[in-house]
Amino acid sequence: MTFANVGMLGTKPGQRDALVAILLRPKPGMKEAGCLLYEVGINADMPDTVFVSELWESAEAHQASLQLDSTQAAIAEAMPLLSGEMGGHRFTVLGSPLR
Amino acid sequence: MTFANVGMLGTKPGQRDALVAILLRPKPGMKEAGCLLYEVGINADMPDTVFVSELWESAEAHQASLQLDSTQAAIAEAMPLLSGEMGGHRFTVLGSPLR
Repeated sequence: MTFANVGMLGTKPGQRDALVAILLRPKPGMKEAGCLLYEVGINADMPDTVFVSELWESAEAHQASLQLDSTQAAIAEAMPLLSGEMGGHRFTVLGSPLR
Repeated sequence: MTFANVGMLGTKPGQRDALVAILLRPKPGMKEAGCLLYEVGINADMPDTVFVSELWESAEAHQASLQLDSTQAAIAEAMPLLSGEMGGHRFTVLGSPLR
């Protein structure tokens, strides 16, 4: 079942764009790990927050991807930029009116 | 700029699947209005909640789509099922590590 993860990552003041750059960097193995979609964005109303919307082939694929070298490196690089505020939710995709 | 809307819709007890059915129904004009992605799902931990993850060609395209006959009909049909609890966020997409 397709798995969706949508989230918000709070950054320390002024670190938003640095986090965006880390998240946007191509990650070897990510697509092969089952990542179908990974959109990264911002909202002017929340200047120290980065938003992500992800789709994965399964919850297990998402979980396994966290062990990829490219993911681990990104996490290590991003960690000092984070404020610790996080939000979001995960769900199992049932379908789409577009399909 | 691609626009993302991720949201949670609370339903009255037992009405989740009825709301899912309304959201999954093909909506004439939706794709033409600029809808790029519209995933609908559920999470067993929140049994009276429906999740959506949407991508649109622009915030304006999303706003305009709310006036489509098919959208208006779906909103009217869904309204009695909703608990009034809603959440979510909107953001401007900057890119993806997959592209």
